Amino acid sequence: MVPHLITALNGPINELEARILESMPAIERWFRLEWMEHTPPFYTAVDVRNAGFKLAPVDTNLFPTGFNHLTPEMLPLAVQAAMAAIEKICPEAKNLLLVPESHLRSNSFYLTHVQRLVQIFGQAGLNVRLGTLDPAVKEPLTLSLHDGSELTIEPLLRTRGRLGLKNFDPCTILLNNDLSEGVPKVLEGLHEQYLLPPLHAGWSVRRKSKHFQSYEEVAKKFAKLLGMDPWLINPMFGQCGQVDFDDPAGLDCVQSNVDALLTKIRRKHKEYGINDKPFVVIKSDKGSAGQGLMTVRDAKDLDDVNRRTRSKLSLLPAGEAVTEVIIQEGVPTYERVHEAVAEPVVTMIDRYVVGGYYRVHAERGIDENLNTPGSSYVPLAFAESHHLPRLGEKPGASAPNRFYMYGVIGRLAMLAASYELEATDPDAEVYE
Amino acid sequence: MVPHLITALNGPINELEARILESMPAIERWFRLEWMEHTPPFYTAVDVRNAGFKLAPVDTNLFPTGFNHLTPEMLPLAVQAAMAAIEKICPEAKNLLLVPESHLRSNSFYLTHVQRLVQIFGQAGLNVRLGTLDPAVKEPLTLSLHDGSELTIEPLLRTRGRLGLKNFDPCTILLNNDLSEGVPKVLEGLHEQYLLPPLHAGWSVRRKSKHFQSYEEVAKKFAKLLGMDPWLINPMFGQCGQVDFDDPAGLDCVQSNVDALLTKIRRKHKEYGINDKPFVVIKSDKGSAGQGLMTVRDAKDLDDVNRRTRSKLSLLPAGEAVTEVIIQEGVPTYERVHEAVAEPVVTMIDRYVVGGYYRVHAERGIDENLNTPGSSYVPLAFAESHHLPRLGEKPGASAPNRFYMYGVIGRLAMLAASYELEATDPDAEVYE
Repeated sequence: MVPHLITALNGPINELEARILESMPAIERWFRLEWMEHTPPFYTAVDVRNAGFKLAPVDTNLFPTGFNHLTPEMLPLAVQAAMAAIEKICPEAKNLLLVPESHLRSNSFYLTHVQRLVQIFGQAGLNVRLGTLDPAVKEPLTLSLHDGSELTIEPLLRTRGRLGLKNFDPCTILLNNDLSEGVPKVLEGLHEQYLLPPLHAGWSVRRKSKHFQSYEEVAKKFAKLLGMDPWLINPMFGQCGQVDFDDPAGLDCVQSNVDALLTKIRRKHKEYGINDKPFVVIKSDKGSAGQGLMTVRDAKDLDDVNRRTRSKLSLLPAGEAVTEVIIQEGVPTYERVHEAVAEPVVTMIDRYVVGGYYRVHAERGIDENLNTPGSSYVPLAFAESHHLPRLGEKPGASAPNRFYMYGVIGRLAMLAASYELEATDPDAEVYE
Repeated sequence: MVPHLITALNGPINELEARILESMPAIERWFRLEWMEHTPPFYTAVDVRNAGFKLAPVDTNLFPTGFNHLTPEMLPLAVQAAMAAIEKICPEAKNLLLVPESHLRSNSFYLTHVQRLVQIFGQAGLNVRLGTLDPAVKEPLTLSLHDGSELTIEPLLRTRGRLGLKNFDPCTILLNNDLSEGVPKVLEGLHEQYLLPPLHAGWSVRRKSKHFQSYEEVAKKFAKLLGMDPWLINPMFGQCGQVDFDDPAGLDCVQSNVDALLTKIRRKHKEYGINDKPFVVIKSDKGSAGQGLMTVRDAKDLDDVNRRTRSKLSLLPAGEAVTEVIIQEGVPTYERVHEAVAEPVVTMIDRYVVGGYYRVHAERGIDENLNTPGSSYVPLAFAESHHLPRLGEKPGASAPNRFYMYGVIGRLAMLAASYELEATDPDAEVYE
């Protein structure tokens, strides 16, 4: 499945693609050196948006879902990467405890994703069992999947310093639950086992602004390597600490940030002769993708917001009047699969790109969040493509070259997440 | 392309396949633990033969060829494995010097193989250039490939402790030349660079008997893990030191070994109710695959040999009357692609199976060497398959399950090569 690359993609991105391709050995070496200094997250999924004039990550998920969207051809890469990951963490491991999201039963797509993870880590050589944070599950519970197969989820069993299941003592606990509702007690103080990703990668601790601050640092380093403007791959942003949405003056900080950011984007658009109307996206600084997104083209648009209800704005966590906010440069996505707006999602295990897919939404615009109900997914032929760029092809015309570039951007965001997790590690002093 | 698995494959191998599949996590963990203690060869290709009643490696190539037989779908796995390999050896590397066979010009298949290696290591992030041991090449020489692309081979440049090309100083030198004609001076004493595989992996030093001695050790360990008879995966062998083919008594040692081995095989066949007539294969203990093979069903057959000319026997290196000999249990291959006799070749980079293919020979019997002029090659859908065994499928009926088993046997032979290289390392004392 090769996406339809619309003709508008003739701008600076094609130059970027050409430069990335010709610099491939230097880029791969640069990543190699970075990974000598920094530890990649266990697994990562990065949403990338290609505006033709700009290519940037807009969300970096450290508890990735969507492994069900990878094609079977991509699975061997995932298994091989999983082998490499385990080897580094706990080579003597026999058992892996996977802790999925708690609302497992109601989501058959997510169940298929979990099944895929079980398959990947099973084939990498681990006995994989599922433990749930849902306190309602007190006995092993068998769930049926669409294809007739079954998954069993079991209640967690905490004993002093260790977490496991009945008759199951894992070396590593792999979270596929983004902890947006806080860190459960049962996961605290597990110093005898590997808990991955670490607790501070959960959305109760993580902040988007911290991530994009790290990404900016990474983008600047990378841009220097390639001799290019980091703006081409870096979405600019501003942030506001505690915004009180009940206070009429609460949005002042947001409004002035929106204004300043739009001015900066306009300047950049002028520099590159881009005719697109600039826009910014306001997001809650915490919480997983898709939560509380609002597209703004003019700071005055926010006057209206003050008059709307909070629930409509939906920027706020339920029951809260105050939240932290990030204001980010909007990156439209000009890729389409058939007629629907599409954005690529790059999936990684350890430092390796293991696949990707398009998130497609027929009812959304090019400047809107696609990670909402109604979206669908199209697997990409990433496996054959990401690793096999074709030098000498016309920029913008070759899917393998395009996917290689997406893989580079995905890895830059993953590296940023690594920087971010190091900077926010509560136990960091211990090792210094 | 799924090979035609003939119905005769209903014997103990199907039980072995079932046991290997159900033990997958234990097997993968066992390999993981072995690789903590031992270093895998940089790359390896293993010829495997499936007799239905027995599955065994018959040749382990540490300077593998045939990367041109891997399907494009397998390449990403190779690139990922190459990345992992480089990272361990020389993470800061920019340059890789590849030293191919010297008779490059006359073999277009081999040229395509070399091009594939250049592609894999290029995409893993290295500047790859080719240096030749051929003293006739004094200037860079550009060779054209069938697909219109080109490869440039350059004369090697030796400066004190380092080897390179003009304006090219590599961190690692990768040999794809089996050194069967001896170690050239230009490769000696390169202590500042990584020379891989090491010189003692070349056929001027290596002995098949050492390899199969290590393989026997590995097979016994593995068989213990699975609770099975190691004979099911281990070809028995005997060896004779210097055999003088000019001396009428020269073949005495060979003859008595053949006799003893045939008796042992008969006993095993009886134990398992196998009706196949036992045979042994006599090979030169050194030299690459295919050189000097002779199939013998009865020790008396050798009486005839004494009467034949040496050239007919072709066991001897040109111009030599004396050679070392290994006498190995013959393993027939019962796999066929269409009507032709076929044997799988498992290809690995670092510790990872990255693909495989069938070596097919329409004019050879099931008990003969297929690695001879006239053989052809059929890529296997190994990439999708090796990592994706399907539990619950009927043994012998599922290609993925069969290929997973071949991948296990290939890795056992690779592990044996690792043991072998440690035992034969001339510099080993230095590190003790």
